[in-house]
Amino acid sequence: MSNTFGQIFRVTTFGESHGTAVGAVVDGCPAGLPLTADDIQRQLDRRRPGQSQLTTARQEADRVTLLSGVERGLTLGTPIALSVANADTRPADYAALAAAPRPSHADYALRMKYGRQAASGGGRASARETIGRVAAGAIAGQLLARFGVEIVAYVQAVGTIEGPEADPLTLTREMVDRTAIRCPDPDAAARMEAEVLDARAADDSVGGVVACICRGVPPGWGEPVFDKLDALLAHAMLSIPAVKGFEVGSGFSGTRMRGSVHNDAFYRRPDGRLGTVTNRSGGIQGGVSNGEPLLLRVAFKPTPTIGKAQETVNYEGQPIRLEAKGRHDPCVLPRAVPVVEAMAALVLADAALMQRAIAGL
Amino acid sequence: MSNTFGQIFRVTTFGESHGTAVGAVVDGCPAGLPLTADDIQRQLDRRRPGQSQLTTARQEADRVTLLSGVERGLTLGTPIALSVANADTRPADYAALAAAPRPSHADYALRMKYGRQAASGGGRASARETIGRVAAGAIAGQLLARFGVEIVAYVQAVGTIEGPEADPLTLTREMVDRTAIRCPDPDAAARMEAEVLDARAADDSVGGVVACICRGVPPGWGEPVFDKLDALLAHAMLSIPAVKGFEVGSGFSGTRMRGSVHNDAFYRRPDGRLGTVTNRSGGIQGGVSNGEPLLLRVAFKPTPTIGKAQETVNYEGQPIRLEAKGRHDPCVLPRAVPVVEAMAALVLADAALMQRAIAGL
Amino acid sequence: MSNTFGQIFRVTTFGESHGTAVGAVVDGCPAGLPLTADDIQRQLDRRRPGQSQLTTARQEADRVTLLSGVERGLTLGTPIALSVANADTRPADYAALAAAPRPSHADYALRMKYGRQAASGGGRASARETIGRVAAGAIAGQLLARFGVEIVAYVQAVGTIEGPEADPLTLTREMVDRTAIRCPDPDAAARMEAEVLDARAADDSVGGVVACICRGVPPGWGEPVFDKLDALLAHAMLSIPAVKGFEVGSGFSGTRMRGSVHNDAFYRRPDGRLGTVTNRSGGIQGGVSNGEPLLLRVAFKPTPTIGKAQETVNYEGQPIRLEAKGRHDPCVLPRAVPVVEAMAALVLADAALMQRAIAGL
Amino acid sequence: MSNTFGQIFRVTTFGESHGTAVGAVVDGCPAGLPLTADDIQRQLDRRRPGQSQLTTARQEADRVTLLSGVERGLTLGTPIALSVANADTRPADYAALAAAPRPSHADYALRMKYGRQAASGGGRASARETIGRVAAGAIAGQLLARFGVEIVAYVQAVGTIEGPEADPLTLTREMVDRTAIRCPDPDAAARMEAEVLDARAADDSVGGVVACICRGVPPGWGEPVFDKLDALLAHAMLSIPAVKGFEVGSGFSGTRMRGSVHNDAFYRRPDGRLGTVTNRSGGIQGGVSNGEPLLLRVAFKPTPTIGKAQETVNYEGQPIRLEAKGRHDPCVLPRAVPVVEAMAALVLADAALMQRAIAGL
Repeated sequence: MSNTFGQIFRVTTFGESHGTAVGAVVDGCPAGLPLTADDIQRQLDRRRPGQSQLTTARQEADRVTLLSGVERGLTLGTPIALSVANADTRPADYAALAAAPRPSHADYALRMKYGRQAASGGGRASARETIGRVAAGAIAGQLLARFGVEIVAYVQAVGTIEGPEADPLTLTREMVDRTAIRCPDPDAAARMEAEVLDARAADDSVGGVVACICRGVPPGWGEPVFDKLDALLAHAMLSIPAVKGFEVGSGFSGTRMRGSVHNDAFYRRPDGRLGTVTNRSGGIQGGVSNGEPLLLRVAFKPTPTIGKAQETVNYEGQPIRLEAKGRHDPCVLPRAVPVVEAMAALVLADAALMQRAIAGL
Repeated sequence: MSNTFGQIFRVTTFGESHGTAVGAVVDGCPAGLPLTADDIQRQLDRRRPGQSQLTTARQEADRVTLLSGVERGLTLGTPIALSVANADTRPADYAALAAAPRPSHADYALRMKYGRQAASGGGRASARETIGRVAAGAIAGQLLARFGVEIVAYVQAVGTIEGPEADPLTLTREMVDRTAIRCPDPDAAARMEAEVLDARAADDSVGGVVACICRGVPPGWGEPVFDKLDALLAHAMLSIPAVKGFEVGSGFSGTRMRGSVHNDAFYRRPDGRLGTVTNRSGGIQGGVSNGEPLLLRVAFKPTPTIGKAQETVNYEGQPIRLEAKGRHDPCVLPRAVPVVEAMAALVLADAALMQRAIAGL
Repeated sequence: MSNTFGQIFRVTTFGESHGTAVGAVVDGCPAGLPLTADDIQRQLDRRRPGQSQLTTARQEADRVTLLSGVERGLTLGTPIALSVANADTRPADYAALAAAPRPSHADYALRMKYGRQAASGGGRASARETIGRVAAGAIAGQLLARFGVEIVAYVQAVGTIEGPEADPLTLTREMVDRTAIRCPDPDAAARMEAEVLDARAADDSVGGVVACICRGVPPGWGEPVFDKLDALLAHAMLSIPAVKGFEVGSGFSGTRMRGSVHNDAFYRRPDGRLGTVTNRSGGIQGGVSNGEPLLLRVAFKPTPTIGKAQETVNYEGQPIRLEAKGRHDPCVLPRAVPVVEAMAALVLADAALMQRAIAGL
Repeated sequence: MSNTFGQIFRVTTFGESHGTAVGAVVDGCPAGLPLTADDIQRQLDRRRPGQSQLTTARQEADRVTLLSGVERGLTLGTPIALSVANADTRPADYAALAAAPRPSHADYALRMKYGRQAASGGGRASARETIGRVAAGAIAGQLLARFGVEIVAYVQAVGTIEGPEADPLTLTREMVDRTAIRCPDPDAAARMEAEVLDARAADDSVGGVVACICRGVPPGWGEPVFDKLDALLAHAMLSIPAVKGFEVGSGFSGTRMRGSVHNDAFYRRPDGRLGTVTNRSGGIQGGVSNGEPLLLRVAFKPTPTIGKAQETVNYEGQPIRLEAKGRHDPCVLPRAVPVVEAMAALVLADAALMQRAIAGL
């Protein structure tokens, strides 16, 4: 509990890092949507390990199999189940971890929660858990395309290196994928990549910020009280492993402005609808989309599993020196890009269907 | 939809700003909990308008009436319904707003959502909606006291003025309430209050940051995937009007550290349990509480409704100069403190009951 | 838990039998629906006690107050909160019940559940709890009228006296209300009323069957697996106090037919759509409405609270002779009619909105 | 939507009749429960086709594969995903069905719902959908064993042939399985089996009643208003394909008794707790278990798919003579027994965990 996300367009994920398979069941997707395994594989390929030397050496092809819900290239309206096999598992790497909890990892908290722990890897607290999200998010993305919504995320900061803000109207996934680090600015990307390699050489890790743009969202999505669109997005993003912060629009920097400076004045757009001159609201006002692009920022801490020795204690409280042996990413940011996109897509697909349900009479 | 929050300990709020009453129904509270209207009133008094010249001039006694669920000072296990009358409504103040959407307010987005709008005030997109949250949060707080949990929030920044971080183990609500701005550091508080009065004098508004400490949370609360404790808290906080950002532990600043610096090493506490030497995790690892205090930060934008003239357009797209006449807060921060506490309490009470349900066999 | 029913169109009820008030919050009702307190009062008047000598002598005007969600006769899309005061409470009547559980009443089970019990009356296990349902159901009924759906229930059996099946296409609430027992067949009604008066004279009670017709439901409502339309209706009906059975279409009698006799053959209707020659399916096939009228039957046991002496034991297990003093109905059937209609309306309103959400692309 | 059932102990099923696989994901099962594939296979073997000449000739081994959530024979507290391959699919048999809806089958209603239909078989409206339920129910059964709960269902009636009521305290699954029809009374069983063979010989089908006993349920499970234990059980049972009715305790027959006869008087049991002398309540009072065995009855209509010719119309409304070619059961009752047990187990496991969550303080 709870491995399900969403109210109407709803995904349930399953699978441990070192078990048989990981996967997801997507319920609530309308019938008649074109969908093939390739549509899903495309995003899984952006998430899978081993894409470059910036990421973990674990080798996983991560080929998706569709088990149900699709026939002749169209969704049936029934649950879409899919799974991805775990191939390159090395439980032996994790034997040492049975004795001591990794600092800032989920090991200790989960053991206290369940009174036991998965035998190897992080169990569900593993980057592999995000496979189900990315696959489900790809399906949500197909649905959102019907509504004219496009979602593009990119790496905006790695450690102390910040790239510029991308143009919300023109950025594409292709532009993002031109660099291994997935920052669309080549100069910033080069410095970011050097930073990751430097951390890797030091058996250390770095964090950073993923920015996410959702354009084409019509006005009216999101619910005005507890299920504000930005509240659902915050929930979605903080549920991604390693995320420690979330901002919409001006975020924390907006707290330092006066209202007269911060407010987004309205203007009449060429199509007759109202738009806003600035977009400090990040496309959401009162929890409801206003037709401007959604602008989100997601903070990822540095990966807690590092090779560098750490002074800590084992479960019995005895001091030990811990050096992680498992394969892990020195920086999760480039692989986190499709995960952020997936979580945004899940929220928006659900909001789209909810708005169909409760739209005014 | 959705005016309900929580899975087991669940609150539903109702009421428009300028209607008959606002209130809440709390479902899932166990039977046998001591509870009186006074327990709730105490937090409502910290939220109500007119406490100082820092806040709106709207006069509301905000006296709570318990309609059900409590008998002879104890909860029955049945829904606790409560309401608070709206007394000082002045719909006339809002007549002008029918013609033009306030910049960065919910007016436009809600009108697009519903195809109409509440006749006056912000309808549900009003600070008054938070009365039900604060009342429900007070009930959650009573329940959490049984688990040894204490929640204290305070104003950490107003505009560009930042106060120091408070000590998570010793800060009390009494210490917070010593200043009108609700910052426990007297020097910072004085500067913050001057800033608010300055903004008020300019018919303008300021934003800021509320920090929140939850101590006494045992290890094991929160669910490892979509319902991570920090994800639920992010959802809760972003659902508060005017919130644009959320951080747990090191938040965005943690993204600039290396893993070896950021990681919280474990040590053996005097009581034999493991603790962490630092607390950059903010008391949550892998989405599950680890026994350390929870440390949260919540970003509030400057109030969008200001008296200062704004150049914008009306619903027909014609340029107008807007000067808000309604009574509004130049700074919501001091009144937001009990709202942040309430939302944290709702999340934790629900997590506490969920953990009772699914605890290992 | 759980005092909320529905996924999108969702009602939460509150209030104990002898507390301050009972009521409901309806969330998820689209904006722009015409709604006044009178629309709700009409159904409450059919449910309230004291309508005839067939029902309890408790006097309650049961006037509804709307607290939110409606402005100028139209719904706002926000939660509709409403309450009804408890006026004629006589806790003293119930003092004796503190010592011994009434046979076949909820007293014992609830005391075991909560470790305590409401001081008087049945707490939530009271017919008064259904006020919130009837009020919410009236709102659902207004919404369903937009979809062309009409719901009419009637008393089909009282004790061993059975009335004929009514015509699903022409029966109206007015026809049902012509007799105090709410059976549209005058002869059967007369015999039923005599039976109720006979039971009352004997300080005893009688049960019976309420039949319910829902016409105008378009094909396609209901979900094919766990949320079959008939499964949701069964859930709704069994949640009404005193209900022990549910049938859709041919129900238990259909189990005695062969498939070739039971099957509803299709034909082409004048409007070109398919219809079925017979309707043993009760308007639902595979959990989804097929365009024919929904036909439901709901079994109510005889009221457990009776004046007649019963040999039982008290909470300590000592034999006692129990004679209930509180006011109670010798037969709940006539007052159950609007409750059954309300629960059917809640299910259908929710199904209508869900189908809007997930309809094929 | 909605292919998920339950609040805390929650199952999601997936898979079409003639697709790649069917299966389920069980979420919310506490960690540390002993569980192997064999525990699940045992119930699947009771459900699978081809057990005797009473059932469909479709050959399916229905071997379950566990994909996640279990390690070294113990549950991890994470989602338990499982799948069963579809082997003996013959889509060609169903080609004729594309042209005309089968009478009393889901074909027409689903086509109207989705605007299309699965290419073959009934899609989700197929007996194969129940595989996921039975597998999940077996897991729920393992959990319930920890609470001392046992569930045994049996065939009580086939067509017009009724067997006697079984003893709720001593009936076992072994006793039920002694006859192919799964009626523990040998004489009744013989007559039932003859009836099924007679129907099969006539290319026809028969319905019947499955009774279900749940013993060992402690007092206090179930929620007093919308989630009454019997309401949840009714929901669960009516969600099974072909079910048209549900009774708890005295059911419809109880409506013909007077209260003084129907009421279950209390007595003091040898263990000091209160029991009831009779059990017309079926173990549930006011929606909450009272410690007596739960007694349920579930009505199954005759299978709608029959070989016998039926006069009906095709989707265009033209008269046709339909003779089904697919393999189907002349009587689903014996295979429905483990499905009824599974649904009862899912409801009770969820109620058990919910009661852990909200038990009085």
